[in-house]
Amino acid sequence: MAFVGKKFPNLNVDAMNDMGDTFKVNVLEEAINNKKKVILFWYPKDFTFVCPTELHAFQAALGEFDKRNTIVIGASCDTPEVHFAWLNTPKNNGGIEGVTYPILADSNRNLASALGILDITNEQYNEETGLYTVEGDNVTYRATYIIDENGIVQHEGINNMPIGRNVNEFIRIIDALTHVQEKGEVCPANWEDGKNA
Amino acid sequence: MAFVGKKFPNLNVDAMNDMGDTFKVNVLEEAINNKKKVILFWYPKDFTFVCPTELHAFQAALGEFDKRNTIVIGASCDTPEVHFAWLNTPKNNGGIEGVTYPILADSNRNLASALGILDITNEQYNEETGLYTVEGDNVTYRATYIIDENGIVQHEGINNMPIGRNVNEFIRIIDALTHVQEKGEVCPANWEDGKNA
Amino acid sequence: MAFVGKKFPNLNVDAMNDMGDTFKVNVLEEAINNKKKVILFWYPKDFTFVCPTELHAFQAALGEFDKRNTIVIGASCDTPEVHFAWLNTPKNNGGIEGVTYPILADSNRNLASALGILDITNEQYNEETGLYTVEGDNVTYRATYIIDENGIVQHEGINNMPIGRNVNEFIRIIDALTHVQEKGEVCPANWEDGKNA
Amino acid sequence: MAFVGKKFPNLNVDAMNDMGDTFKVNVLEEAINNKKKVILFWYPKDFTFVCPTELHAFQAALGEFDKRNTIVIGASCDTPEVHFAWLNTPKNNGGIEGVTYPILADSNRNLASALGILDITNEQYNEETGLYTVEGDNVTYRATYIIDENGIVQHEGINNMPIGRNVNEFIRIIDALTHVQEKGEVCPANWEDGKNA
Amino acid sequence: MAFVGKKFPNLNVDAMNDMGDTFKVNVLEEAINNKKKVILFWYPKDFTFVCPTELHAFQAALGEFDKRNTIVIGASCDTPEVHFAWLNTPKNNGGIEGVTYPILADSNRNLASALGILDITNEQYNEETGLYTVEGDNVTYRATYIIDENGIVQHEGINNMPIGRNVNEFIRIIDALTHVQEKGEVCPANWEDGKNA
Amino acid sequence: MAFVGKKFPNLNVDAMNDMGDTFKVNVLEEAINNKKKVILFWYPKDFTFVCPTELHAFQAALGEFDKRNTIVIGASCDTPEVHFAWLNTPKNNGGIEGVTYPILADSNRNLASALGILDITNEQYNEETGLYTVEGDNVTYRATYIIDENGIVQHEGINNMPIGRNVNEFIRIIDALTHVQEKGEVCPANWEDGKNA
Amino acid sequence: MAFVGKKFPNLNVDAMNDMGDTFKVNVLEEAINNKKKVILFWYPKDFTFVCPTELHAFQAALGEFDKRNTIVIGASCDTPEVHFAWLNTPKNNGGIEGVTYPILADSNRNLASALGILDITNEQYNEETGLYTVEGDNVTYRATYIIDENGIVQHEGINNMPIGRNVNEFIRIIDALTHVQEKGEVCPANWEDGKNA
Amino acid sequence: MAFVGKKFPNLNVDAMNDMGDTFKVNVLEEAINNKKKVILFWYPKDFTFVCPTELHAFQAALGEFDKRNTIVIGASCDTPEVHFAWLNTPKNNGGIEGVTYPILADSNRNLASALGILDITNEQYNEETGLYTVEGDNVTYRATYIIDENGIVQHEGINNMPIGRNVNEFIRIIDALTHVQEKGEVCPANWEDGKNA
Amino acid sequence: MAFVGKKFPNLNVDAMNDMGDTFKVNVLEEAINNKKKVILFWYPKDFTFVCPTELHAFQAALGEFDKRNTIVIGASCDTPEVHFAWLNTPKNNGGIEGVTYPILADSNRNLASALGILDITNEQYNEETGLYTVEGDNVTYRATYIIDENGIVQHEGINNMPIGRNVNEFIRIIDALTHVQEKGEVCPANWEDGKNA
Amino acid sequence: MAFVGKKFPNLNVDAMNDMGDTFKVNVLEEAINNKKKVILFWYPKDFTFVCPTELHAFQAALGEFDKRNTIVIGASCDTPEVHFAWLNTPKNNGGIEGVTYPILADSNRNLASALGILDITNEQYNEETGLYTVEGDNVTYRATYIIDENGIVQHEGINNMPIGRNVNEFIRIIDALTHVQEKGEVCPANWEDGKNA
Repeated sequence: MAFVGKKFPNLNVDAMNDMGDTFKVNVLEEAINNKKKVILFWYPKDFTFVCPTELHAFQAALGEFDKRNTIVIGASCDTPEVHFAWLNTPKNNGGIEGVTYPILADSNRNLASALGILDITNEQYNEETGLYTVEGDNVTYRATYIIDENGIVQHEGINNMPIGRNVNEFIRIIDALTHVQEKGEVCPANWEDGKNA
Repeated sequence: MAFVGKKFPNLNVDAMNDMGDTFKVNVLEEAINNKKKVILFWYPKDFTFVCPTELHAFQAALGEFDKRNTIVIGASCDTPEVHFAWLNTPKNNGGIEGVTYPILADSNRNLASALGILDITNEQYNEETGLYTVEGDNVTYRATYIIDENGIVQHEGINNMPIGRNVNEFIRIIDALTHVQEKGEVCPANWEDGKNA
Repeated sequence: MAFVGKKFPNLNVDAMNDMGDTFKVNVLEEAINNKKKVILFWYPKDFTFVCPTELHAFQAALGEFDKRNTIVIGASCDTPEVHFAWLNTPKNNGGIEGVTYPILADSNRNLASALGILDITNEQYNEETGLYTVEGDNVTYRATYIIDENGIVQHEGINNMPIGRNVNEFIRIIDALTHVQEKGEVCPANWEDGKNA
Repeated sequence: MAFVGKKFPNLNVDAMNDMGDTFKVNVLEEAINNKKKVILFWYPKDFTFVCPTELHAFQAALGEFDKRNTIVIGASCDTPEVHFAWLNTPKNNGGIEGVTYPILADSNRNLASALGILDITNEQYNEETGLYTVEGDNVTYRATYIIDENGIVQHEGINNMPIGRNVNEFIRIIDALTHVQEKGEVCPANWEDGKNA
Repeated sequence: MAFVGKKFPNLNVDAMNDMGDTFKVNVLEEAINNKKKVILFWYPKDFTFVCPTELHAFQAALGEFDKRNTIVIGASCDTPEVHFAWLNTPKNNGGIEGVTYPILADSNRNLASALGILDITNEQYNEETGLYTVEGDNVTYRATYIIDENGIVQHEGINNMPIGRNVNEFIRIIDALTHVQEKGEVCPANWEDGKNA
Repeated sequence: MAFVGKKFPNLNVDAMNDMGDTFKVNVLEEAINNKKKVILFWYPKDFTFVCPTELHAFQAALGEFDKRNTIVIGASCDTPEVHFAWLNTPKNNGGIEGVTYPILADSNRNLASALGILDITNEQYNEETGLYTVEGDNVTYRATYIIDENGIVQHEGINNMPIGRNVNEFIRIIDALTHVQEKGEVCPANWEDGKNA
Repeated sequence: MAFVGKKFPNLNVDAMNDMGDTFKVNVLEEAINNKKKVILFWYPKDFTFVCPTELHAFQAALGEFDKRNTIVIGASCDTPEVHFAWLNTPKNNGGIEGVTYPILADSNRNLASALGILDITNEQYNEETGLYTVEGDNVTYRATYIIDENGIVQHEGINNMPIGRNVNEFIRIIDALTHVQEKGEVCPANWEDGKNA
Repeated sequence: MAFVGKKFPNLNVDAMNDMGDTFKVNVLEEAINNKKKVILFWYPKDFTFVCPTELHAFQAALGEFDKRNTIVIGASCDTPEVHFAWLNTPKNNGGIEGVTYPILADSNRNLASALGILDITNEQYNEETGLYTVEGDNVTYRATYIIDENGIVQHEGINNMPIGRNVNEFIRIIDALTHVQEKGEVCPANWEDGKNA
Repeated sequence: MAFVGKKFPNLNVDAMNDMGDTFKVNVLEEAINNKKKVILFWYPKDFTFVCPTELHAFQAALGEFDKRNTIVIGASCDTPEVHFAWLNTPKNNGGIEGVTYPILADSNRNLASALGILDITNEQYNEETGLYTVEGDNVTYRATYIIDENGIVQHEGINNMPIGRNVNEFIRIIDALTHVQEKGEVCPANWEDGKNA
Repeated sequence: MAFVGKKFPNLNVDAMNDMGDTFKVNVLEEAINNKKKVILFWYPKDFTFVCPTELHAFQAALGEFDKRNTIVIGASCDTPEVHFAWLNTPKNNGGIEGVTYPILADSNRNLASALGILDITNEQYNEETGLYTVEGDNVTYRATYIIDENGIVQHEGINNMPIGRNVNEFIRIIDALTHVQEKGEVCPANWEDGKNA
């Protein structure tokens, strides 16, 4: 079921930042309490090769998001300890040193389950052995959520594991959303801020 | 639950084209039987103002999609008769005259329900009156699916009603997918064909 | 189960008129609040060929219905936008330009489902694919309801898709109903106002 | 749920004719086996005043129905014995002497229940007394069914108790149905045979 | 389960008398409110040949029942209109002209169902067609109930359709019941009032 | 539910006769295998005062029943031992010495339960104590069944405890049944063999 | 489940004595209200041969039980009327004339069912015939209960039908119970009052 | 529910003897395979004071049981190891040295549960804590079973914890049972072998 | 499910000590009320050979546990009587004379069931015989629990029957736990008090 | 429920080694197919401080385990990528460089769930929000399993998060197990190889 048009799930999730602080983030409250938009992007796993480029790309665009009153939050199902180890690994070693936005450590999968973005399939119960098993690594696809200042999801997108995202497209969507909010006009296809709607 | 990583639903849906022909389209089979990628995009309603610009934008990019071995299919929950009336309405009257790709007429919502992209909420049964009711227009959000040659969903994205899509971003994703298929390499963030991965 | 002898369902439905206004109509309240009879007629789809003749026939008889304290309401499951486009299409192009009574746009099928007049059959759940499907276009038969000033259904009739209705017969039934209300007499077969009962 | 577009229920029902014969009638098989249309009309009760005029009106039009390859069948929930007594009561005593078509005696309500046209409401179980009760006389509304040569219902109409029917309208519907069958054309509103469709 | 020793069902049933009045009869309240015994006898159908002799026999014995403080009530599942027609049919035409006690018109079978005396069998649901059917005419056997002044059933007897009843036997049972009530003595076999118990 | 019109329950029950023999009786098979009618009469208890007069009255009429091809069977829920003690008690001591027909000893109530003629009421489960209890003595009312040569019940009658039965009435019913069987005629009220039907 | 160590079931049961009085006995209350022990012994049937010797043996020992503050109660599932007939039958005719303790007449089996001592087995439901049946005579085994002054069961014993009981053993058990109550000592095997414990 | 009249449960149970052997005993098979009677007596616990006197009393009477073709088996819910320790404890230390018959060690309570003789009560589930608990020591009452050569229980008796048993009474019952088996006569009360029945 | 990290079950269990006192122990309350740690160790059975060495080993270390503010409690499913007999058996006879800590006598298995440490398997219901059976002796494995002063389980360990435990390891774990409590430091592998963490 | 005495769960789990290979490990098959014992130890999280000391301690003792025919396997719920990153982190940076035994990467928790060793608690469904949530990090306690050559668990132990394990104790248990296997003797408390059992 689409999350677009509905409130983002109201859940507290552990997060880590580059200071090594573990703290709780509630994405819905981040938007509402701060009267900001939020872009939340999930990646499958720490310490893989495609993921750091995405994390660095969001870091590089942090100023653009900030100008657009938008908070950036990353997320995976790794633990805060692993996030911190990766944050301390230099970029040229495949690390994400230099990333300053918070990264959710949803190791108990409370939020990822609610969003339905885990790669597990074939939940099964084996009557003979009494074992429940799933297939898949129990990690998330590359899912992205743009949430408005009221906590309503305005965009959701999911890429399969190997397909990286385009940060500029999310900036375009945020601009379109802002345009709708300010002008009350619907944004047609390929609309970009500064071009005529 | 994400559709990414799974087969697209195996369903026959009515469709209309600019010839006025009503025919059945099975998106999954279109991909597999033609060994082509498919981009399927849903818009809320015929005869509205933001929608035709999206339909024209996809029409304009038809050559680009074709070069990439990709079939374009539009879709809404209007009837074939309404699609045909709109196809016969000139662009400057808010019509989509000139569109040549098929448009699904999912008036029984078999496919839109399976994808979970209808805007209905609050399904309720009133015990006193014995009436089942829903809220919402029972039309779809702006949902887009990129399906590979095996019928597997590789990207899904949903925009809220007023936010138009960017055709170029879908071309980028298709290029990235092709790159992964050909090179076996994961595409990092902001990757574009021709740039270094 | 017959609706005759029972209150018409108490539901608000979107409607469109020739002004392009979208508004809510509650058929039951139309009757009770206005102390009027209501004739509600459903047709399958906008932009088809048999339907406009019915819509024009009701328009032509509007004066007769008005004289009989009767409100005319049309209805289909198309959207208000499609109704408006059709209302703006000239009669000789297959449109219904000139129709002034409101037309329900029951796109979420709340009312059509309650009345049981949708053409869907064979509701099925495919366990293997997890898909629910129906057969049929999910549009209504040619159903007609005559409701009295207390909101009680006094006549219901359903024609299959290709069989048009006879506006005069509905006027006869309304006259018979009025006769019963005024005279307390039962109306025998073939009774017509002005003839002896 | 509408019966239009579906097969008429396949049920044997007792019937009586003016010869005093009790026999079984299966309306569906009457249509299919004889390759005829059937018009089946229900009235509430024998020995009432509005009903005989309807029964006489159908008798008077028997030739017209016959010309149109259509069998006429009457029906109520009275017993064959009561039908026979009424058939032997002169018209000027409120009887139906002279009626020659068969009349269903659906005293066990098998068919009337299947059609949902009984006037019973408020089915209740009183836990204290252990009694099941209904309200209403358990007789039928004035329901009419036009069934084609394949046993498919093409028209159904229900009038409340005091509102008599118009035999000519049913002839018009049968003509329209025949027109569709022969010409493959949809019949527009107010269509009558001999006029231009 | 026997009704003997229990209160008669507390139900209002339509009844007809020779004046043509339709009114409600509650057998239980007839007994209790009038401090009278009641004999209620059911027959299968109006306008049959064995039934009128029973109705006439009870009429002939009305004085005897009255002397014994006993109300006579007849009953079948025909409608009041049919009862009235039969009451207006002369005895030598097979009618029951001259009968003055009320006759229940239990057309909705509320009471006959509660007593379990309908001849329907083989209640069945056909899964393929979705039809519920019963066998039998849905009329009652020749059941008789003698109810005391407190509404308690003291005798119940059921004869199969073709076997007429003996009015004198019911008078004997009422006498025996009165004897028990007055003398506190049990009535032995073949006991008759005036003979030694 | 009436047993009239249905087969008598197919059950073996212990019985005792004046020889002191304990044997099994299957009432249904008695009728069918012997091609005889059966009159089965139940009384509440051995060693009470009203019951022996009934048993003696049936004994006295044994020749009449025999002439009518009818087997007489008595029945109560006492044990065979108690029946035998009562059979050995002289008539003037309240015994039934001289009775020669078999008497069912339905101490396990298999048959009396099937017939629903036990005087138990208010079956209750006390959750606190875990006890199931009933009210009443768990003995039968004065129930009588006349079964034809095919094992079909043609008459059933139940008297409350203190009201004795009339053997002549059962002979009249058997004669009426025989008349129907032989003449195919229905027996009107008060019919008696030798009188004109 | 053992009754030993639990309260005896709290139930009122009909009883008969040699005066011919029918009265209610609640075994539990007999014990508690009278601050007495109770010995309750069940036998299968009145008017059999082994049973009277047991009833006479308990009668003969009545003084011993009385000395031990113990009430004797007999019990079977026969009716009070049968008990009275047996109480009036001389000993040398197989009767129990001379017995003065009360005898329960548990004809509705409320208490015998609660104790689980009926000889019925194989409770079955025959789906074809709709009949529930049991095997066995629905009478009790030779069960004996010794209940203390608080209503707690201290001994329960059940003999199969043909094996008579030993009154002295019950006296020994009552003595042992009294010893435990008075001395607070456990009674070893074969203990008898007056011997050293 | 009584075990008398039914087969003893068919279960293998661990047992210990004075040799220190652990072996399986199936009481039912002991009876049937050896064509012997079995007396099985349960005591609550090893190493208590009343129990050894019972075990010694059965040992002392072993010759008498043997003469009567009867096997003696003791039983408690202690383990074989505990039985062996007790068998090795001298009588004057409260042990059972000298006992030679086998003693069941039903530590898993399979048999004691089947017989319903454990002292546990108030089985409860505490929803808050998720704990199932019982009250009582989960040991058996002093239950005794006499089983015949066909494995049918002929006597069952249960004494509360503090009340010892009388070995002679069991010998009397076995004699009575043998008498019934040999003579086919029922044993009256207080019957003892050698006395006149 | 692990008990570590959760409160120990809140249950009262019988216990025995060397004084022969039977008393209730609630392990959870022992910890909380005394502000002490508890080590609870289960062994399979009294009067076996490996078990006494464990009981003696815990006795020998009692001073060490006391120094560490830790209560020692033993436990098996034998009865208090058996524990007392074993406590009175000299060590060189395989007894545990000299043990002074309390030993739980969980004969009703309330606690052992809650902990899931019983050796029963294959719980089965035999439909034919109606018997529930288990396999295994229904005794516990060698399970050990270390509970902190708040009643939280900090260590649980289970050895199969034949594998004895090492008391020093439990002392090490208690020291590690104390270290964590006092220093707030996590104890690394092989940590021992006095060595550097 | 204890795993001791049962087969270890039969599951394939992803694992990583110091070569960077990802492969599947089935612990049960490792034991059975290699005819080796297995020690499987779980730790909560990679990149924490207490865990590496345990991993290094097992590495240091690898020779001792090997001498005892025992395979060492580590396990956590982190991904293979994270394991590899940690394996490449030098010991003095908190890494586990130098560890050569495989480490399970049970990121989908199939095995940890089966073992019941995850720290999640309070599984809850919020009806208002439709969200399922758990508390805890969804990582494992410090659980250890010693499995014999037949795949049977012989020891299981769980420490709370902050309490490190003692590798020597596991070696002692393995020696004890081997002693039992070879000598058939039970190992008493504190037993160590080379000391006298």
